[in-house]
This record gives sequence, C-alpha cells and structure tokens, in this order.
Amino acid sequence: MDIAIPIFDGITALDAIGPYEVLARLPEARVHFLALEPGAKRTGNRMLALTADGALSDLPHPEVIVFPGGHGTDTVMHEEAVLAWVRAAHESSQWTTSVCTGSLVLAAAGILDGLEATTHCMYMDQLAELGATPVSRRVVEQGKVITAAGVSSGIDMALTLAAHIAGEDVAQAIQLRIEYDPEPPFDSGSTDKASPEVIELARTRS
Amino acid sequence: MDIAIPIFDGITALDAIGPYEVLARLPEARVHFLALEPGAKRTGNRMLALTADGALSDLPHPEVIVFPGGHGTDTVMHEEAVLAWVRAAHESSQWTTSVCTGSLVLAAAGILDGLEATTHCMYMDQLAELGATPVSRRVVEQGKVITAAGVSSGIDMALTLAAHIAGEDVAQAIQLRIEYDPEPPFDSGSTDKASPEVIELARTRS
Repeated sequence: MDIAIPIFDGITALDAIGPYEVLARLPEARVHFLALEPGAKRTGNRMLALTADGALSDLPHPEVIVFPGGHGTDTVMHEEAVLAWVRAAHESSQWTTSVCTGSLVLAAAGILDGLEATTHCMYMDQLAELGATPVSRRVVEQGKVITAAGVSSGIDMALTLAAHIAGEDVAQAIQLRIEYDPEPPFDSGSTDKASPEVIELARTRS
Repeated sequence: MDIAIPIFDGITALDAIGPYEVLARLPEARVHFLALEPGAKRTGNRMLALTADGALSDLPHPEVIVFPGGHGTDTVMHEEAVLAWVRAAHESSQWTTSVCTGSLVLAAAGILDGLEATTHCMYMDQLAELGATPVSRRVVEQGKVITAAGVSSGIDMALTLAAHIAGEDVAQAIQLRIEYDPEPPFDSGSTDKASPEVIELARTRS
C-alpha cells in the first residue's frame, strides 16, 4: 500500500509526522514523502528540513493521500500542478485525507465541494469560501475523504484510518507502540476550552 | 534560547517532532537539529529523512537538550563522542530532556544515575541496567532532567517544559495553536489499558 504525503516549503512538520508515525506501521505500508520538486523542504519557521525523496509525478496513483498543512498551503493551493496531481490521485485513491490547512488544498482542487470538512480553527472561513461545509470536529469523515483539524489532530485521524484499513486490533497495537495515551498538562487545546486570555495569546503568535 | 535536538539514523521521527512543534513556538526559541555529522538522517523504517543542519560540536552549550529515541539509540548509546557532548551540554543546560529510548542515551552518559526516569514501556529493564530507577509514568521530572515515555509522550513533556520556561499561559496558547485536544478513537495507548491480544500484536510488530 502506497501512502503519499506531499510536503512543501512552509509545512507544519507535525501535520505530516503524526499520521506518518501511525500509517508507516500498517502491514505492507510504504509512506512516500513527495513534492513537485524533490529535495529538502523547510518548515514555516525555517528550523527544520524534511526530505521529499521523490516527485509527485513519480506516484500518480497512491492508495492513500495525506495532505498536511502549514503556512505554505497559501502558495500550494495556487499551484496548478499540485492541484492536478491531487485531482488525479483522488480519482483512484482508496482514501484522501488532510491535516490542518491541508484541507484548503483539497478544497482548492475541488475535492471538498459540498462535503463537510474541517481544518485549523482559525481557517474555517477560508475553507467555506473554497466550497466545503466547515465542521468543528477533530476528524470529519465523508466517504473516502477524511479531514482533520489542526496540527496534532492528524494522529487521531490516522488511527481512525488505520482501523478502516487494517482493523481495530492493528490500529490499537499501533496506538500502543507509539504510546498514544495522551496526558496534556492543561486543557486548552480547543477554543471551547481555552480561556479568553489564552485564545488572544494564541491569535497573536504564529 | 537554543534548543538542541540531536538526530541520528534510526530515529523515530515523532519523538523529535512532537517536542519541536511545541518548543519552537516559545518566545525567542531557536530549535537546532544536530548530529555528529550534519546531513540527512533516516528514520528506522528508512521512509523519511530529517536534516541535521549542524554538528553537535557547533552548539556545545544549548539551554535545552531534547534527546529523541528510536532503534538507532542502540548504536548512539555507544558513541563516545555523542556521550561526551551530552555530558558537557548537560553541565550547562537549563533543561535536559528525552523522549522514548532517548533516555537510554542520557543514562549511558551517566546523567540518570540514581534518578527516576522513564522510557518506552518495552525498554524499562534496559533503563534500569544503565543506572536509572525506571518509573511507569508519562513524564518524569527530576530537577532539570525530564524524561518522557514512548514516542507521542514527547508532546506532553514539551508542554510541561514550556510552562516551566515561559509560564502556563504561553504553554496553553501553544497547546491551542497545535490544537492538542486529543481524541484517540481507542483507549489502548498503554499496557494498563490495551487488551492482551493487542499487547501481543504490538510486541510482535516494530
């Protein structure tokens, strides 16, 4: 099973690495980090480079697509070559998924037209403008299209997807291998839960 | 504030990327991915390369050390040049931390002698053999030394550390930015919670 994770300059690393760490553990899975042009792609803060080992055109028909987000999607959603790859890959994919603002790229490609979908809480309006129906949930499933909310939600999305692909026992074994038994020291991971001061602080920081 | 994340062939990517995604958002923080020899370092499954932009020797006195784990620590814990860097960096660090089997490297460097510490649940015996007192908790704090359990626990550790460094409001704002409001679809993230079948499945898979 070929799993394509497109990466790009301005990516948020955890958007990609969370699902990767889950899906790479599926039986017979092969995760491919790809880009329009192979090579090093730096995160939005420039502190880290992930390597795209191949070109998107090397893998036109992956079984699974995971499109991560980050500030770089502002650019990527206007790159016709990326959108054309997404459209064609989606036609034959078993699963087409996104994390964070990765859903804006799926939407720009027309894949989310009329579907419920999610993204980072600060980009819901933009998702609506692109033709999707935004939903404030951590993971939104619409047939073979699964979108996840911001950054860390890709781990939850990927475990859900792993169960669809390989069954719940395998997905649970993966959860155990990565010891995903979260104990956040605070409870401010969504705007429903954070204080007004924390929400304001989050809005003014990148 | 300079934050050093040593990387190496055989790393588990999420061990490094979870804490990175949190700590890079601290005010004035600069995360450095470093290695004995700079360049691309591949994960244990060979599916992904992260770039070490600099050498460990370029940054002898970081304020924060985060040592990630992965099968590669089997080798790294015997590399005297790495252990010497860890020992010297720990002398001047404000915080010395690890995720997963990264604690085995700290232990091999002598930093955990007589301290409580944790690691991935399947490596507790090895941690004890190296002189630490293993504790089955997600995050173990001993003064300036903080160790985290397997893989995904680095996110919880880093949020705890972020609060120590910059206060709870900033840490909570980071939690909100990365929408860390976990909703695992199952509850099998620790051996206390997983079924015997799932534990067996996890043991037989990598």
